[in-house]
Amino acid sequence: MINKPLILITNDDGIHAKGIACLVEAMKEYGDLVVVSADESHSGMSHAITVKKPLYLKDMGEKDGVRYYMTNGTPVDCVKLALHTVLHRYPDYIVSGINHGSNSSTSVHYSGTLGAAREGALNGIPAIGFSLLSYESDADFTECHKIIKVVFEDVLKNGLAPDVYLNVNIPYTDKVKGIKYCRQGKGKWVEDFIERTDPRGRQYFWLTGHFENLEPEATDTDEYYLDNDYASVVPCSIDATDSVSLKENKNYEL
Amino acid sequence: MINKPLILITNDDGIHAKGIACLVEAMKEYGDLVVVSADESHSGMSHAITVKKPLYLKDMGEKDGVRYYMTNGTPVDCVKLALHTVLHRYPDYIVSGINHGSNSSTSVHYSGTLGAAREGALNGIPAIGFSLLSYESDADFTECHKIIKVVFEDVLKNGLAPDVYLNVNIPYTDKVKGIKYCRQGKGKWVEDFIERTDPRGRQYFWLTGHFENLEPEATDTDEYYLDNDYASVVPCSIDATDSVSLKENKNYEL
Repeated sequence: MINKPLILITNDDGIHAKGIACLVEAMKEYGDLVVVSADESHSGMSHAITVKKPLYLKDMGEKDGVRYYMTNGTPVDCVKLALHTVLHRYPDYIVSGINHGSNSSTSVHYSGTLGAAREGALNGIPAIGFSLLSYESDADFTECHKIIKVVFEDVLKNGLAPDVYLNVNIPYTDKVKGIKYCRQGKGKWVEDFIERTDPRGRQYFWLTGHFENLEPEATDTDEYYLDNDYASVVPCSIDATDSVSLKENKNYEL
Repeated sequence: MINKPLILITNDDGIHAKGIACLVEAMKEYGDLVVVSADESHSGMSHAITVKKPLYLKDMGEKDGVRYYMTNGTPVDCVKLALHTVLHRYPDYIVSGINHGSNSSTSVHYSGTLGAAREGALNGIPAIGFSLLSYESDADFTECHKIIKVVFEDVLKNGLAPDVYLNVNIPYTDKVKGIKYCRQGKGKWVEDFIERTDPRGRQYFWLTGHFENLEPEATDTDEYYLDNDYASVVPCSIDATDSVSLKENKNYEL
């Protein structure tokens, strides 16, 4: 008897999001699926973990052969709870998403969707984060299916390098032209805080902003390919070391 | 008239922590200091931003020539608020810490202290995160002063490469032997959830765990040098791309 792969699915938009339902649909043919996701959205939670309050875990039962668990934690908490409490063994793969909105360029650092994928890589598990470039809660995820199929089957066949996870972004268009494996573009979020006064007279701020592409002329970045109707796949390393800086070989004795 | 550098100081242990007071002391000679920090600790908040609730900012006044502001946000929120609301210009440097506890190896991904430094780098500002390898709230930070002096004066003199921030960890010992610029060691947190039942009969979990060095034989990592009473400095890149994986030059037309 051949065991099917065990695949953990999570996201940062919560268990009720359309994106995770689409990811479950797309992944069904590849293995036994277990979903561990949060009761509400955890956008912008990055690689955060919950250390100051207890985590709850609710068994939501099985639906169409898929097991669902709901937590009050961050995406990384979901992966940790799944690995150590829900599953009886490490999953063979972790897929996260489909995020409602882009996680391209430096957004990888803010994204809970990619936090979950990175946590997979930190535990030696091949992991992929998928995002669609639409923030609509009722976005059309139809085009995502073929991207997920190609990218996941490539990982099934070739594996991933150790310590590497994939950041996959999908343009919101009727026809995705193809899939490009490429580097992370340079970019940043430019903040524009909304400033108001609360009923008690205290000033408060809402964080808001827009993304700025810092190399608009580049033709080899995720930003470039997404702008040209290609899905982008950035292989990301959990090793943050900037090896170029290390070549200076600096040391100080004290 | 020569303007002194403007230096933003933040941390993830909150404005009342001993570590940030020590960092302020150590940095005083280098410029005009502004502290923006949280009302409570935000350990494990990584690069998280607050998008679902408003942020408050309280002017705590001036003390010994240093201006203090308190927020209810994450370390990255503190940097964003400082850049866009508190300061009238971008600071010349951002220093974060001194964290109570290690942020070596892959802990860089969970750390709010390093989240703040990374946010500096994302905005083109030279940034350093400092951590002491003691979780004690009343730890002795004496040895940190000389490390901060050497590392910061090196940055003052030579600058940092674009998109790079420094992850500095300091061993908790009476005599730090020296400072080694080195790579991030491989390691992971092994979880060991504490499982309990609340008064309403619901099962809950506390996240706890210990760090495991995955390459104990290596002699060129931050973990190795810290174990041998050296402070470690890992230059970290905001570019997560794994360029080795990209050499396969994969593309798919659809």
